[in-house]
Order: sequence, then structure tokens, then C-alpha cells
Amino acid sequence: MKRPSGREADQMRQVTLTRHYTKHAEGSVLVEFGDTKVICTVSVEAGVPRFLRGSGQGWITAEYGMLPRSTGGRMQREASRGKQGGRTLEIQRLIGRSLRAAVDLKSLGENTLYIDCDVIQADGGTRTASITGACVALVDALRVMKQRGALKKMPAVQMIAAVSVGIYQGEPVLDLDYLEDSAADTDLNVVVTDKGGFIEVQGTAEAAPFSAEELNAMLALAKQGVDQLFALQLAALETE
Amino acid sequence: MKRPSGREADQMRQVTLTRHYTKHAEGSVLVEFGDTKVICTVSVEAGVPRFLRGSGQGWITAEYGMLPRSTGGRMQREASRGKQGGRTLEIQRLIGRSLRAAVDLKSLGENTLYIDCDVIQADGGTRTASITGACVALVDALRVMKQRGALKKMPAVQMIAAVSVGIYQGEPVLDLDYLEDSAADTDLNVVVTDKGGFIEVQGTAEAAPFSAEELNAMLALAKQGVDQLFALQLAALETE
Amino acid sequence: MKRPSGREADQMRQVTLTRHYTKHAEGSVLVEFGDTKVICTVSVEAGVPRFLRGSGQGWITAEYGMLPRSTGGRMQREASRGKQGGRTLEIQRLIGRSLRAAVDLKSLGENTLYIDCDVIQADGGTRTASITGACVALVDALRVMKQRGALKKMPAVQMIAAVSVGIYQGEPVLDLDYLEDSAADTDLNVVVTDKGGFIEVQGTAEAAPFSAEELNAMLALAKQGVDQLFALQLAALETE
Amino acid sequence: MKRPSGREADQMRQVTLTRHYTKHAEGSVLVEFGDTKVICTVSVEAGVPRFLRGSGQGWITAEYGMLPRSTGGRMQREASRGKQGGRTLEIQRLIGRSLRAAVDLKSLGENTLYIDCDVIQADGGTRTASITGACVALVDALRVMKQRGALKKMPAVQMIAAVSVGIYQGEPVLDLDYLEDSAADTDLNVVVTDKGGFIEVQGTAEAAPFSAEELNAMLALAKQGVDQLFALQLAALETE
Amino acid sequence: MKRPSGREADQMRQVTLTRHYTKHAEGSVLVEFGDTKVICTVSVEAGVPRFLRGSGQGWITAEYGMLPRSTGGRMQREASRGKQGGRTLEIQRLIGRSLRAAVDLKSLGENTLYIDCDVIQADGGTRTASITGACVALVDALRVMKQRGALKKMPAVQMIAAVSVGIYQGEPVLDLDYLEDSAADTDLNVVVTDKGGFIEVQGTAEAAPFSAEELNAMLALAKQGVDQLFALQLAALETE
Amino acid sequence: MKRPSGREADQMRQVTLTRHYTKHAEGSVLVEFGDTKVICTVSVEAGVPRFLRGSGQGWITAEYGMLPRSTGGRMQREASRGKQGGRTLEIQRLIGRSLRAAVDLKSLGENTLYIDCDVIQADGGTRTASITGACVALVDALRVMKQRGALKKMPAVQMIAAVSVGIYQGEPVLDLDYLEDSAADTDLNVVVTDKGGFIEVQGTAEAAPFSAEELNAMLALAKQGVDQLFALQLAALETE
Repeated sequence: MKRPSGREADQMRQVTLTRHYTKHAEGSVLVEFGDTKVICTVSVEAGVPRFLRGSGQGWITAEYGMLPRSTGGRMQREASRGKQGGRTLEIQRLIGRSLRAAVDLKSLGENTLYIDCDVIQADGGTRTASITGACVALVDALRVMKQRGALKKMPAVQMIAAVSVGIYQGEPVLDLDYLEDSAADTDLNVVVTDKGGFIEVQGTAEAAPFSAEELNAMLALAKQGVDQLFALQLAALETE
Repeated sequence: MKRPSGREADQMRQVTLTRHYTKHAEGSVLVEFGDTKVICTVSVEAGVPRFLRGSGQGWITAEYGMLPRSTGGRMQREASRGKQGGRTLEIQRLIGRSLRAAVDLKSLGENTLYIDCDVIQADGGTRTASITGACVALVDALRVMKQRGALKKMPAVQMIAAVSVGIYQGEPVLDLDYLEDSAADTDLNVVVTDKGGFIEVQGTAEAAPFSAEELNAMLALAKQGVDQLFALQLAALETE
Repeated sequence: MKRPSGREADQMRQVTLTRHYTKHAEGSVLVEFGDTKVICTVSVEAGVPRFLRGSGQGWITAEYGMLPRSTGGRMQREASRGKQGGRTLEIQRLIGRSLRAAVDLKSLGENTLYIDCDVIQADGGTRTASITGACVALVDALRVMKQRGALKKMPAVQMIAAVSVGIYQGEPVLDLDYLEDSAADTDLNVVVTDKGGFIEVQGTAEAAPFSAEELNAMLALAKQGVDQLFALQLAALETE
Repeated sequence: MKRPSGREADQMRQVTLTRHYTKHAEGSVLVEFGDTKVICTVSVEAGVPRFLRGSGQGWITAEYGMLPRSTGGRMQREASRGKQGGRTLEIQRLIGRSLRAAVDLKSLGENTLYIDCDVIQADGGTRTASITGACVALVDALRVMKQRGALKKMPAVQMIAAVSVGIYQGEPVLDLDYLEDSAADTDLNVVVTDKGGFIEVQGTAEAAPFSAEELNAMLALAKQGVDQLFALQLAALETE
Repeated sequence: MKRPSGREADQMRQVTLTRHYTKHAEGSVLVEFGDTKVICTVSVEAGVPRFLRGSGQGWITAEYGMLPRSTGGRMQREASRGKQGGRTLEIQRLIGRSLRAAVDLKSLGENTLYIDCDVIQADGGTRTASITGACVALVDALRVMKQRGALKKMPAVQMIAAVSVGIYQGEPVLDLDYLEDSAADTDLNVVVTDKGGFIEVQGTAEAAPFSAEELNAMLALAKQGVDQLFALQLAALETE
Repeated sequence: MKRPSGREADQMRQVTLTRHYTKHAEGSVLVEFGDTKVICTVSVEAGVPRFLRGSGQGWITAEYGMLPRSTGGRMQREASRGKQGGRTLEIQRLIGRSLRAAVDLKSLGENTLYIDCDVIQADGGTRTASITGACVALVDALRVMKQRGALKKMPAVQMIAAVSVGIYQGEPVLDLDYLEDSAADTDLNVVVTDKGGFIEVQGTAEAAPFSAEELNAMLALAKQGVDQLFALQLAALETE
């Protein structure tokens, strides 16, 4: 088997995490998984949704978007269509659930953290790049909250990273780009904590059903991938 | 461990499949998983979406809805809110993907099969009940197409069934009802073919991350559940 | 004259009222007028719309929907179209007005009763079946409110029933099914109280204008029909 | 009984019909029923809705709107709310049905006539004024079509007029203004042809149910009213 | 050069301002610039938008609409399309900004003045006619507020008027009608105070870019035009 | 007078134009005016809007958006609000009109060029930066069309650039950043061709009306600014 990208089956694309990418947001990270580029910002606002008012607890929610020409052909702008598509809603729900696992919401006070993941260039794996980048931006936002006195102490954060794996020509491969994703039999997105527990496992048979063995092989490969991502997140957060 | 429902860990709720439930649709099944009740209809229309025109191939798509008071508290009617929520879109995309795996779209000719799953009473597991019931309605619709001459021969159908599993108080349990689902640590929806291959595996950590071992235990339990569902589908389709 | 249904001019379809049809709603009735089947639920919520706050008075409002394949051909789902059609709004406004005549709103306290009428199978007369069934569900909901202590005593209820009449081949006929309705010259929906007063009279000339004599003949027939409906409502409410 | 307006029970408001009120539309009439003022335009466009293509038959459809401050308090503009309300849709459906009875659609060729009724000042009876004025604008539009050669000959037109009647303090009264309408027990809108047949009869009990006798008394009064309207329509159409 | 309208280059159309045009609004003016006719109403409501609450200051906002057949061809009704178009929003933002310059918002107390400009017949220059007419209606509304005691004293008002100018066949011309506007090389809308200062200057090259000299010539012409408008506003406001 | 930015009155911010910023679009430029950063892409699609079909002529249209946290406080995402705001529509209409002046639409054949301007960081002047950057991306897109054979020869392009000017503390200043814009008395956006003609002049009095002299002083300053922009556009387009 030869991957279209020429990578080894267990080889990730070049991943970079650029902090402080834009200047207004409390957390702002440009995440790149090869040619996939996503701006992840975290914005802090006082107050929580109605169902949490008076609870003393905070909230984390996410929105996702793609620039119209982030993709091979131009997509209609969702703002001018007047609604977000099903794929967009599905992805932003996934990002929100994943990041809510990073930190105990009780430690946030009645504040809301808005995560915005905007894809400026797409080449497969935008949702997993978004989660991985947003977790770094989240830590930056918490640090800003601490500095501003909105938090008494820095809350414990469980780092979250995500990667896609697939079955390509019968073999499990790591971190699919767009071409590989289009040709894969199965597509599996895995969200993991830095302790190794799964937060989300979403597998879809594209061409042929998959077996438990294939699923386990893909999960093992995903674990390898996220370990590299955790190292990159850590390195990024250590620099100033 | 004692389940709130009093069932054994590997015990499904009473499942019934009532064919020809309403009279207009080409396929119409009332599926009940305990107190969860969903009307699944399949409607056949000549023609396909633009991206398939001229391909000679058919299409299967799904929509999902809940009656406003199918749930414990009344939900706002999506038609009067003016849009379908993210959860609705996510579920109907899942149903559509799952049922497209049941039959080779090329065998349908340029026809579209609309699957409508409308929950009239909800008690957990509405998406898995929908998939399981819709597959029976799909077979009925294909039979009608054959009778009407829209299909030359009955296409091969791979039966599809789905069930939810979870980790409840540290133990894997099958087919969660609403109370169990609310209290579970993990929620996993599994869509399987009658050959045993996975079509979709969607696991979400609700309270605590889950391990590969827990995932495999849940998958094994799910397989037990869908085997019972395949038997019920078969029995239902044999009667007139 | 021979009706397509084979019924006598003054003969209603078989009507059944099944109480407690679903388990969550305070009132839940499946009403069947022949092949027309509607689930009517009544949901009680504390609070009233802004224009009634502080008045001590309650409110009753209604919503109506049809499952996409409740009809001969599939209709587009209103939730996915993003708006309710004119016919839907017109019918739910009629149901709401009619049921507000059943009970003195002052006796409800500041509570809102949401009536949801969802057509699962349509064969003509869905609005009149909805009103007739919803009135039974309303009584059940009031009984639940009384049991829960939300009402000190059961308020006086004026039962409301509705039926359609028409001019078919020059003759007035009662309770038109879909085929008859499509072929009728005039379509008249009549909403009546159990004291015999009219709440709504809505007549539309479909093919030819109608005269005052025809109108009076239709109203007389409608009165015969609703008298049977009042007896069925009463019988249904007497059983437990 | 003394009407708030000081009029006799069977006395209509001053009605005026001003043709050619605006310059662009094929038919354009300002209709005034006392202080109620509505601009009715009829616009002719080649082509018909999809369901009539190839039938050789035309179509008539109507839209209704109120300027935001046509009423006592300012209403939110429907264009900025993003949808038309239920009352608006109900009224425009009524106007469209009523005017389709004026002329045999087959005589129009495959043309669509759009009726726009825009209320610039409201004081009760806007829907009946709209129908009455729109029928005159319709005749003007047909004449223009004839002149332009879009119609070979002027089609036969059955004039349509409409008026509201009510029960005010126990007595039937004709052509209610806003104050009277707000205080009436019953509100009945009647649409009639110049041959005396009913096109629509829509009666609603506002405060107390009404009897067949009251209904017939109101219908008789309505007939008196529309006879005056037919004379005014005729007079207006005779002038150049 | 000969203008299509036959007017001199510096000649405005006949302008009329009819106060108290409709009866409900605090200010209501029909403004006519030749065949362009706009109803401008000003409605007063207690309260201000959220961002001004507690500031003691008032707010002025505007909405603009065109009747569907105010133009040569029928336009789709924005209320039924479900949104206002870009041109509409642009114009109503311009009207709002312009009128907010007429009066110190602090002098209004926490009240909101809604300006509604509805075009009943369009022949070019609807936005400038709207601004000119709305300013008169605004003064009337302030007088009503003073009479009702909502204002202690009449606030100082700086009158605002607006006119369009253009380059037609190489020459600057004043107050373009629709035909002239369609054929002009440049279109410039100018909003001015009665002290001669500019509030808005919006120039667009339609066919060819314009020079600073042309711009200045157009501005000089516009000043001539608004001086006539200020005189008409003054005269209108002096009568009762 | 001292500008908040410390710049001279006639000093622009650092402007950079980065071509080929993203890989999918036919033209893709990152434009930076100081801290204002906008991604401008141009996408080519065969076909034109309905009103141009069969004309042999092309079309250029623009859309504009801001990432939710491109600004100091987070703005609600327009895609999730379900509509674009008035400011957005106004800006994208301006960009489209301006760029349609750059090239003779007849030379494009029946192709549509979609310009997307997405602000990733805002600090004043986003619309003028967008126009300036989009013009460079437009040239790149035309070159790609030429290479692909969609154009026989490179059409003549009139370069377009835009800059804002204002009156700050009584003095005209060039290229306002956000802080300066918020404090300015007047805000003027000027779009110019490389021949020196004006395409758009949009001046708004923010605090006090402005005079013709002030307008001319601002226009002169704007001309200085765009001359620098034309030089930068030229330099950018000369490199490969």
C-alpha cells in the first residue's frame, strides 16, 4: 500500500500550533495539520446560559465555520444562505463536548468560553485539528482570566487532542488528508485525553463495513498520533 | 449493579415492529423499543438530487422529528422555531448514512427514497429504534416498487439494525432507556449489518473517559442486541 | 346521489377517541375519524404570555402539524423548510380559538395549556377531528392539574366538537373524507358547543357559490354530527 | 342599542373607490371604508406556477400587508421580523380564494395576476375592504391585458364584494369599525358574488356562541351591504 | 443637453409635503418628489434599546420598504421572501443616521422614535424624499410628545433634507427621476442640515469615474436643491 | 494635534499584500493595513446570474464577513444568527460595485468571479483594505483563467484601491485605525482608480456636519494614500 501523500501508514502530517495568532481574543491559536489551517479563538464573557444561572458554574460552547473558498470548490457562505448546515452543527457540537471535558466547569465561575474554529484552508481533518488547537487556546484564555482576576487560581486542565484514522486499501492509516479521506473505506475520528481515555470515538463505514479488529487497529494508531499532539501542545504552551 | 429498569445488563427492552402502520406510504413501520415509539415511513419519488441526475443511480435520504410532547417536558416545535436543531440534523444524517448501506443505490434507478422517522413517544434510544424500524419499512417500499414495475427485480438488501449501549455504574449495559442514559458514564450507538460489520460506531464520554477495553465490552454487548433485532426484522418481514 | 364512501348523506365515519395514548403529556388522545388519525396532546406549563402576566388568568394555544407522509404524496417537512405554511397557521389558529371557548381562562390561574395536534394519517377532516379530540385531552389535562394541586377545583368545561359538511352533487353530506372533499362544491367547517351554540362557521365555495338555504341545510346536518361526537366524548371521559 | 360610531345598525361607512391610484400597476385602486384605507394593485406577469404549466390556464394569487403604523400602536414590520404572521397569511389566502371566483382562470391564458393589498390606515374591516377594492383593480388589469393583446377578448367577470357584520349588544350590525369589532360578540366576514351566492362565510364567536338565527340575521344584513358595494364598484368602473 | 424630464439642469421636481396623512402615528407625512410618493410616519414608544438603558438618552431608528408594485415591474414582497434585501437595509441605515443628526438624543428622554418610510410609488430618489419627509414627521412627533407631557420642552431641531444629483451626459443635474438615474454616469445622494453642513455624501460612479471638480459641481447643485426643500419644510410646519 | 497612533496626519499604516495566501482559490491575497488583516479570495465559476444569461458577459460579486472574534468583543456569528447584518450587506455591495469597475465585464465571457473578503483581525478600515487586496487577487484570478484557457487574452484591468480618511480634532487624517475612527468627527471612504477617478465617495458625519472644504481636504489626502497603495499593488503583482 502506498498512501497518496507518500507518508508512512503511521505518519502524521507536519503539525504546528501558533499561539497569539490574532490580538483580540483571550486565546488565539493557528493550528496546521499539513495544508489544513484553522484559526481557533477562545473568547471569555461573563455570564452563562439560562439553564446554569445561579449555579456558580461556567460553560464552554463552540462554533465552527469554513471560509467559502477554504475548499477545492467554493461553498456557499452559510451566513448568506441563512443557516448553518448539518455538517457544521455536528462538528461544532463535537468540539464543544470535547472541550468541556478539558476542565471542570465548576472551576470557571459563571463565565462562558466561546470557542470559534474557523477553517481558512481545508485539506482533511478540520475537526480534529480544531479540537487540538482549541485546547491550547483554551489554556491561554484561562491564563488570561487568572491574570485579570476572573479566576482565583488556574484550574486543572486535562489536555484534549484529536486525530482521524482510516482504513485505506485494507490498511489502517493515520491522519488522513482530503485525498486519502475521499478514498478511504472507513473514517474514524478519535478524541482522547492526555491520560489516554477516550472522549469521543466516531467511526463511519464509507465503502465497506468494518470489523472490531479494524476498529481496534485504528484506535491504536490514533493513540500514537495523539501522543505526538500532546507533546506539541505541551511544547507550545511552555514557550512565551 | 441494578439497572433502574430492573433489566439484566444484557437484556433489551421489548421490541415490536408493526408493518403497514399508516396507509399512504410505500413502507410504514411503527417501531417500539419499550416506551420509545417511532413511526418510520419510506416514500418513493421519481427523480434524484441534482448531483446524481443522469447517473442512473438512486438516492436514500432521511428526516427525523419528535412530536413536541413526545418527551417528559414539552419541546418547542421545530417547524414553528423555523429551524431544525443540531441534534435533529445529526440524527437524520446518521439514519440516512446507515440506510444507504442497506442497498446498492445503483439498483434503485433514478428514484429517491425519503425516510421519515417521527418519534411519537421518547424514552431513550430513538435514533437506534429509528434505524431498526426504517430498514423494515425500506424493504416494504422496495417490494412496492417491484410490484409497481419501478424495479425490475428486488435488489439485494443487507439488513441494518442499531442499538445503544453504555457504561452504567462501571458496567456495560444494553439498550438504555431515558433514565439509564441520563445516568450513564458513556453512551455508544452502534449500527451493524446482518453480516456483523459495523456501519457506525459513535461513543461519547458523558461523565468519565472510557477505555479501549470498555469500548470492546460495549461492542460485544451491542452485537448480542442487534442479533435479536435481526431476528425480529426477519420475522416481521416474513408475515404478510 | 351516491357518496364515494358509500355512506348515507347524514352518516359519519367511525369515530374513536383513545385517551392516555402517549405517556408524558397531561392529556393525550388519539382521535380517529375513519382513516384520519390525529394525536392530540395537552401540555401544562406554569406561566403565561407577556400580555397576560399579572392578570391571574391562564392561556390556551394550539399548534398543528402533519407527518410528511400522512398524506397521499409526501409533503415537505415544515421544520426543514424553515417555516409553517399558511394552511397550518390557519388551522392552528382555529384550534386555539375553539378550545379557548371550552373553559373560562380565569379559572386556570397563570398557566398555559399547549395543545399539539399532529396528524399521523390524513383522510379529510383533520381540523375537525383535531378540535374534537383536543377537547377530551383538555379535560384530562385539567384533571391532572387538579390532582397536582395546580387547580383548587375542576373548572366548568363547555365541551367543543367540530365536523365538516359539504355540498356533494347538489346534496348536503356530513363528515367528508378526502375523496369527497376534493369533489365537493362547498366545504363548511363547523365548531359547536354542547349547548348548541356556534363557535366557528367557515364555509368556502369550492366550485360554485352557495346559497343561504344550502348553508342552513349544512348547519342542520352538522348539528346532527356533533351531537354524536358529544356522546362519544362523554363516553370516553366516563371510563377510567 | 347605540353603535360607538353613531351609525344605524344597517348603515355602512362611507366607501370610496379611487381607480388608477398609482401609476405602474395594471390595476390600482385605493379603497376606503371610512378610516380604513387599502391600496389594492393587480400586477400581470406572463407564466404560471409549476402546477399549472402547460395547462393553458392562468392563476390569481394575493398578498396582504399592513404598514407598521397603520394601526393604533406600531406593529413590527413583517419584512424585518423575517416572516409573515398567521393573521396575514390567513387574510391573503382568503383574498386569493375570493378573487379566483371572479373570473374563469381558463380565460386568462398562462398569466399570473398578483393582487397586493397594502393597508395604509386600519380601522376595522381591512380584509373585506381589500376584497372589494381588489375586484375593481382586477377588472382594470384585465382591460389592460386586453388592450395589450394579452387577452383576445375581455373575460366574463363575476363581481365580488365583501363586508363584515357582527352582533353588537345583542343586535346585528353592519360594517364594523375597529372599536365596534373589539366590543362585538360575534364577527362574521361574508364574501358574495353579484349574483348573490356566497363565496366565503367566516363567523367567529368572540364572546358568546351564536345561534343559527343570529347567523341568518347577519347574513341578511351582509347582503344589504354588498348590494351597496356592487353599485359603487359598477359606478367606479363606468367612469374613465 | 436635454433631460428626459424636460427640466432644467438645476430644476427640482414638484415637491409636496402633506402632514397628518394618516391618523394613528405621532407624525405622518406624505412626501412627493414628482411621481415618487413615500409615507413617512414617526411612532413614539417608551423605552430604548438595551445599550442605552439607564442612560437617560433616547433613540431614533428607521425602517424602509417599498410596496411590491410601487415600481415598474412587481418586486417580491420582502415579508414573504423572509428577509429585507441589502438595498433596503442600506437605505434604512442611511435614514436612521440622517435623522439622528436632527435632534440631540439626550433631549428625548428614554424614548424611541421609529421612523417608517414606505414607498407607495417610486420614480427615483426615494431615499432622499424619505429623509426630507421624515424630518417633518419627526417635528410633528416631538410636538405630540410635548403635548402629552413626555417632553418638558420642545427640543432644538436642526432640519435635515436630502436630494440626489448626478452627471447626465457630462453635465450635473439636480433631483434625478428614474429614467435619468438609469442613464446617469454618476449618482450622488447628499444629506444636509439647514446650517449647510453635510451629514452624508454618497457618490457612486455608474458608468465612468468622476473627478473632484464634478463632485464639487454636484455638491453645489445639491445645496441649491436642499435650500428649496428647507423652505418647503418650514412652510409645511407653519400651517396647522 | 497628535493622532492616537502617533502617525503623521498623512501617514498610512504599514500595508502588506501577500499573494497565494491560500491554495485553492484562483486568487488569494492576505491584505494587512497595520493590525487589520483580511483574506481576499477570488473564485471563478462558469455561468452567470439569470439576468445575464445569453449576454456573453461575465459578472463579479462580493461577500464580506468577519470572524466572530476578529474584533475587540466577540460578535455573534452571522451564520448562526441566520442572517447577515445591514453593515455586512452594505460593505459587500460596496466591494462588488468597486471591483466591477476594475474590468470590462464583457471581456470575462459568461463566468462569475466571487470575491470573498474575510476579516481575521479588525482594527479599522476593513472595507478599504478589502477592496485594495481583492483587486490584486482579481488580477491573479484573471491570470489563472488565461492559463486555463477560459480567457483568450488577459483583459485590460484598471486597478482599484481604497482608503479611509477622517476629520480628527479638526484636522484631516489618513487611514484611520479603530481608535481614531471611534473618535473622528467625520469618516470618509474613498475608492479610486489608478487613473485618479473616483468610483465611490462615502462620507458620514459622526459628530458634527462637515463642510465642502473639509471634504476636499480629505479627498486630497485620500489621493495621496491610494497612490501609495497602487505602487504596492504593482510591486506585489510583479513578483512571482
